[in-house]
Amino acid sequence: MTKHKFSDDAAIIAFVRRHTRLFNDDASLVVTEIGDGNINFVYRVAEPGGASVIVKQALPYVRIIGEGWPLSLDRIRIEAESLVLEAEHAGEWVPEVYHYEHDLAAIIMQDLGEHQNLRHALNERRKLPLLAQHLGLFMARTLFHTSDMHLDAHQKKALVKRFINPDLCKITEDLFFLDPYCDHERNAINPPLRKAAEALWQDDRLKVEVADLKYAFLNRAEALLHGDLHSGSIFVTEQSTKVIDPEFAYFGPIGFDVGSVIGNLLLNWCGQHEQAGDAQERQDWRGWLLVQIDKLWHEFSREFSHLMAEQTIDESLQNPRWQARRMLQIWSDTLGFAGTELIRRTIGLAHVADLETIEDAARRAQCEAMALQLGRELILQRNDIHSMTELLDLVRQLND
Amino acid sequence: MTKHKFSDDAAIIAFVRRHTRLFNDDASLVVTEIGDGNINFVYRVAEPGGASVIVKQALPYVRIIGEGWPLSLDRIRIEAESLVLEAEHAGEWVPEVYHYEHDLAAIIMQDLGEHQNLRHALNERRKLPLLAQHLGLFMARTLFHTSDMHLDAHQKKALVKRFINPDLCKITEDLFFLDPYCDHERNAINPPLRKAAEALWQDDRLKVEVADLKYAFLNRAEALLHGDLHSGSIFVTEQSTKVIDPEFAYFGPIGFDVGSVIGNLLLNWCGQHEQAGDAQERQDWRGWLLVQIDKLWHEFSREFSHLMAEQTIDESLQNPRWQARRMLQIWSDTLGFAGTELIRRTIGLAHVADLETIEDAARRAQCEAMALQLGRELILQRNDIHSMTELLDLVRQLND
Repeated sequence: MTKHKFSDDAAIIAFVRRHTRLFNDDASLVVTEIGDGNINFVYRVAEPGGASVIVKQALPYVRIIGEGWPLSLDRIRIEAESLVLEAEHAGEWVPEVYHYEHDLAAIIMQDLGEHQNLRHALNERRKLPLLAQHLGLFMARTLFHTSDMHLDAHQKKALVKRFINPDLCKITEDLFFLDPYCDHERNAINPPLRKAAEALWQDDRLKVEVADLKYAFLNRAEALLHGDLHSGSIFVTEQSTKVIDPEFAYFGPIGFDVGSVIGNLLLNWCGQHEQAGDAQERQDWRGWLLVQIDKLWHEFSREFSHLMAEQTIDESLQNPRWQARRMLQIWSDTLGFAGTELIRRTIGLAHVADLETIEDAARRAQCEAMALQLGRELILQRNDIHSMTELLDLVRQLND
Repeated sequence: MTKHKFSDDAAIIAFVRRHTRLFNDDASLVVTEIGDGNINFVYRVAEPGGASVIVKQALPYVRIIGEGWPLSLDRIRIEAESLVLEAEHAGEWVPEVYHYEHDLAAIIMQDLGEHQNLRHALNERRKLPLLAQHLGLFMARTLFHTSDMHLDAHQKKALVKRFINPDLCKITEDLFFLDPYCDHERNAINPPLRKAAEALWQDDRLKVEVADLKYAFLNRAEALLHGDLHSGSIFVTEQSTKVIDPEFAYFGPIGFDVGSVIGNLLLNWCGQHEQAGDAQERQDWRGWLLVQIDKLWHEFSREFSHLMAEQTIDESLQNPRWQARRMLQIWSDTLGFAGTELIRRTIGLAHVADLETIEDAARRAQCEAMALQLGRELILQRNDIHSMTELLDLVRQLND
């Protein structure tokens, strides 16, 4: 099973030299393993003081678990092909793919160099002036151009087939929609939060709505999603935003991607209640976060509506009133999926640094309770919250 | 392109003898071409006084048009595989497949012998005591067992991939959801009905709802549909019902199949207003049709609900309140898709004998106007009609 793994640094260097022309022939290249993900191996190959690339290799199992948790190598093909497809319409915001090699299950791609992981940037309260605009446009353009509004009937179905992604979808189906709503062994629950989690497991009204969201995730092949668009999949500088790691890509409901981003900003907002630092600074930062959510949705919906109005090819879907209705549906899906992200990151398997870095368990639990409550409200009220103002009011009320 | 076609009767007989053991070695077999469809070739191969089989062969174009309208041969694979899959859960109601041969694009299947095409039976006002029950159970069992309620996540996605069917879906996308709502050259409109059709083309409220139904048809991969479940795809005797021709099969919204059947019963109901024959007999027949619609939905929804309650594997989807909501959604989809069937059979490309056999154009137009109006009401009111009683009242009011 492990025959694919590069045997040593020399093999990685040879692979890179064979498929790129970025390095001088006589340069001595340095390989560093830099992956902080749980699933794959990621290497930087650099000429000291010169060019560099990233090599990402998938093995047929989950890296941190080993061969006991097998995972299809097809995910790296899906990642490579997604990056190439995204680049067609949103090239500014994805790393360039230099080479993909099926037999090695490896991609050579652009090194993002000075970019920082967005989750770390948010935890440092680093204000990024272009982030919301970039993410809004990235999502609008990638999602619109892979939807039935833009693709013809044959292209769309060929792509749906190409991006059937059962192994990775199954992870989401379980971790987002199943585990957090029952006493599942995969859950990780901060002891002071246990009672709140137990209350959630009894909340039948909530579970009905979560089943609806899961059914949408399973069935609605609206557009090629990134599928894992949390803060850790986004890399940033002041001027640049790059979305990486689309190995969960598949055709699903558009609001899932938008909801993931907004859910992650809200998780940071919840954590800031008890994070270290000056109270005024934290309050100011939380205000900035809410402004970003507003801007992000504004950019996304303006661009997506514009593309629908100008570039929809399917005549039946050119109707402006139908397009307005479509945006409303994406909005309510967005709220619902943001809610599932808030909940699963609080009591599910995979937690986030935005909350986990609060060392005191009791104080962390206050923030987690806030995330749980907000997640629940977003899911239950997703068809009744009619504007960004109402959403932000709902968030602010959590402080009271 | 035509290399696949059987060269002569002897080739058909040799093919059947090679792949079945139904005939005596010394029997002289007779081949009759019996296809009354527009797309494929269908032959009966029979031993006089003895066994018989059906051979269906697809050519890479539409039969009645010729090579000028190419059509993927993959449709016959999809038909063969659908029949086999349907037989797993509803074998009583589909012809048995004896052999499928990819290279010849041909299926050998059970001869339905004494069965009559349901459209002809309805036009003869032949009351079939088991029809509604059979169709309700057929749909409930085939649709439930190919849905996310029953299949595990990997099986479902593998099947979705296997039944991607762009050529045939495109026909439905155009003929159901596009042509009838604009002045399309493919439409065939009875001159006295022209004004009513023109009014429909201006009906923006209706077009918004039709776009929603089309979007559902394009995106909602809920279950393996038959995809073309009109009266001509159903063969009947007093005691037996067989559903044939699933070449349009693909994963789509469950209500599409149910709506197609109900739409076809309603088309017959509309035609009976001006069909030949005794007024009392026609009135009595129309009453019978409405009783069948009631029974059909009752059987379908009872069985589908029962299967959801007893056999749903996905834990998130076991919630009884969610399952009740799911049935409501199928109901409103059913009404909407029945509405599109009524409209496209009246002013679109493919008309039905239930209306076309009314020779007088003006009288036929009265029935067609009724079908158009009913179709429109079903589409617009599909979320407001809350029970079978309300539906049947709406239908009966068309007489006033």
